[in-house]
Amino acid sequence: MTEKQDLMRPWDGIVSRKEQNAYSAAGLGKPLGVGQHPALLVIDVQYRTAGTRSMPYEQATQEFGTSCGEAAWNAIPHISKLMARFRQMNQPVLFPYVSKKTLADQGRVSEKSPGLMTASDLGYEFVAEVAPLDGDILLPKKHPSAFFGTPLVSYLINLGIDTLVVAGCSTSGCVRATVVDAFSYNFRVVVPQDCVYDRSATSHAVNLFDMASKYADVAPLNAVLEMLQPN
Amino acid sequence: MTEKQDLMRPWDGIVSRKEQNAYSAAGLGKPLGVGQHPALLVIDVQYRTAGTRSMPYEQATQEFGTSCGEAAWNAIPHISKLMARFRQMNQPVLFPYVSKKTLADQGRVSEKSPGLMTASDLGYEFVAEVAPLDGDILLPKKHPSAFFGTPLVSYLINLGIDTLVVAGCSTSGCVRATVVDAFSYNFRVVVPQDCVYDRSATSHAVNLFDMASKYADVAPLNAVLEMLQPN
Amino acid sequence: MTEKQDLMRPWDGIVSRKEQNAYSAAGLGKPLGVGQHPALLVIDVQYRTAGTRSMPYEQATQEFGTSCGEAAWNAIPHISKLMARFRQMNQPVLFPYVSKKTLADQGRVSEKSPGLMTASDLGYEFVAEVAPLDGDILLPKKHPSAFFGTPLVSYLINLGIDTLVVAGCSTSGCVRATVVDAFSYNFRVVVPQDCVYDRSATSHAVNLFDMASKYADVAPLNAVLEMLQPN
Amino acid sequence: MTEKQDLMRPWDGIVSRKEQNAYSAAGLGKPLGVGQHPALLVIDVQYRTAGTRSMPYEQATQEFGTSCGEAAWNAIPHISKLMARFRQMNQPVLFPYVSKKTLADQGRVSEKSPGLMTASDLGYEFVAEVAPLDGDILLPKKHPSAFFGTPLVSYLINLGIDTLVVAGCSTSGCVRATVVDAFSYNFRVVVPQDCVYDRSATSHAVNLFDMASKYADVAPLNAVLEMLQPN
Repeated sequence: MTEKQDLMRPWDGIVSRKEQNAYSAAGLGKPLGVGQHPALLVIDVQYRTAGTRSMPYEQATQEFGTSCGEAAWNAIPHISKLMARFRQMNQPVLFPYVSKKTLADQGRVSEKSPGLMTASDLGYEFVAEVAPLDGDILLPKKHPSAFFGTPLVSYLINLGIDTLVVAGCSTSGCVRATVVDAFSYNFRVVVPQDCVYDRSATSHAVNLFDMASKYADVAPLNAVLEMLQPN
Repeated sequence: MTEKQDLMRPWDGIVSRKEQNAYSAAGLGKPLGVGQHPALLVIDVQYRTAGTRSMPYEQATQEFGTSCGEAAWNAIPHISKLMARFRQMNQPVLFPYVSKKTLADQGRVSEKSPGLMTASDLGYEFVAEVAPLDGDILLPKKHPSAFFGTPLVSYLINLGIDTLVVAGCSTSGCVRATVVDAFSYNFRVVVPQDCVYDRSATSHAVNLFDMASKYADVAPLNAVLEMLQPN
Repeated sequence: MTEKQDLMRPWDGIVSRKEQNAYSAAGLGKPLGVGQHPALLVIDVQYRTAGTRSMPYEQATQEFGTSCGEAAWNAIPHISKLMARFRQMNQPVLFPYVSKKTLADQGRVSEKSPGLMTASDLGYEFVAEVAPLDGDILLPKKHPSAFFGTPLVSYLINLGIDTLVVAGCSTSGCVRATVVDAFSYNFRVVVPQDCVYDRSATSHAVNLFDMASKYADVAPLNAVLEMLQPN
Repeated sequence: MTEKQDLMRPWDGIVSRKEQNAYSAAGLGKPLGVGQHPALLVIDVQYRTAGTRSMPYEQATQEFGTSCGEAAWNAIPHISKLMARFRQMNQPVLFPYVSKKTLADQGRVSEKSPGLMTASDLGYEFVAEVAPLDGDILLPKKHPSAFFGTPLVSYLINLGIDTLVVAGCSTSGCVRATVVDAFSYNFRVVVPQDCVYDRSATSHAVNLFDMASKYADVAPLNAVLEMLQPN
């Protein structure tokens, strides 16, 4: 990353310079880079999180209570570019997603966040601009992390993956949980900051700071694309 | 929780009222309460995260680079009270902790955060005020979540636990990662906001907001103690 | 279990009396009993493992290469009785099953056992006599253990389960793998010996011996039904 | 493997030719071979499973109730040769082992197999002939599989491992459980049949048959050494 990008991290103005310096002094946040075999995770980019088109947040939540509104549609063109690069490199793109809950799907999530349980069938469809192709791996999930209760790690081991690039939503929810698990499994992790979205701008920024400090390389898409050169 | 406590959430002034309303409108953040069989997790309360006594952050990091300084010593008396309640209720207290890394302990963490690898032996000792007793379950861990790569969930199933109260540090690191996993396993989760600590006040507050919105009940110790009545 | 049943364990004549005594002398194989909250797992009872009706093994494998033939249809009436008891007790019945593999489902299993990959759609349907009801939890799985890469443990924690009764097939494959994991999670585990089936009689018997020695209570259905009294 | 070795599989005479043919007809048991980056797991080769020297089983169990007697000491020289090859190839050797249980280590194992809980400190030492070197990864475990409740998979991903060779004991217990998990994670798995041991010859043979049929390449050490050529 260039120094200029470094001067404009998404959390500047929210996490104080003093706090940022404190983290650096503690030896946190070194960049890890990418390995030889990256895969792309596109998490939960379904109409239930994006809405069917770009709308202000309040309006968007009337279509789907779980929509992130404009933030989603700002990210989707970047996700599309990133996905195109993976297609070009012939590296795998995997799609963890939320499948419609049934009556039997009890558990903490329905109590904690009843609003998450009510989207229509359309809400569970993938956003067309960044939808899976035939042959892509789809991973229905019940919990925030794309690894939790899914065979994701087995797919990645089978594919010989060493690096995960994580896109989608929400930054503070499923993206964050997936990044922490990916880091714990010892994959290299990259989060293109403009390819993830959230319903809270503050939480988005601070979660990017947390991930950059402890678990992942966080950078603008352009910088990530430079790291991902086709072989 | 009383309305007054609700008026003074730790993230007020950092996460805007508008963002908080947006989360409520999306149906996030309902309280879950405690079950019949709670356990207490005290995570990483070792001298490497607290220092040997209360010192300002800058001074504290000269003793241990990973120290959280005064924030730790503000939390420790609260953790001590909480622990006393669990002892009184005869409910289990478990201690996930970081054990000294060896040369063989490679992996992403040593590259990402070399500062985490250098504490002296004293740094790995439990802070005396809230140290385990004989017979308590100790869980050495290599990764942020107390569940990842440890037998924690097996212990909890064996003990018939349905609720986890999580204390210790850091709020944005091991506490957050553990809370997300505990929620995913379908335990009820409670985070007493004054029993967890971090090196960044902003990250501490926003992670409490994230957890309160999606994964846990977050409340002051006094409110948590009211929820935890001895049978 | 009565002494008479003990005299007729399914592995008698295959595992020598001397070996059985050696295991007892080593302090292995104590019975565990059932807890207060049992759940029933019915694993892989689909036409691909049973065939559409009872046929000798050679004939059955011409219908589905993975069929276990008559052994399946000897077990199914017992599984049906066991399931009825769980319905009567109003305790949960869960259905881990193999879903049709897609092109993207690479991995060791397709190389190791190509015969597992070729069943028709009918093969993936549940055997009608012991099929799930609306509201039952279905768990598609990619790997032998019903826990591996699935949210099963989260469902069980949510339901407050302390005991798993395991039925289905194959004794030496998915049943065995699931039983080992259930034991490792610290559930009590019961295997009704006449409710599980396999394509090899020897492997069936020896796996029952292994499970009885180390991981589970293994007993005839009648004895299991006595342990499972409605409250 | 040569045809001659194939004529002398360890389960011949125990699993009938007819059963073996039935498995082959079902498309089970294709060999997988080794990948580019193998690691060796040496499981539980401690004095508690081997005794301090080769003794007949009955005598051995008087030293340690969990001893496998002569079977262990027949395997140890083969394990030693295998380990030497991994040292020579500079590929990792990892040591999952059972650490001494404390009072807090409750759970199903202490009820099911009280004999497993009583060995002296010497019993927990590694057998000197195949003991770890400084820098080797040691993995204390509480459950049969070396993966369950341990960070093993994270170590393997960090090391870029694609193939696991599994040695140690017991064939029907921790070796089998580890092999099933390794297969489920999509590692290639090899079990050198003369490098694993058990207290029951029948169970040893049938578990090798199960693993060869469904999860691993099972072959004599000599054949495995041919597969593992130094680069």
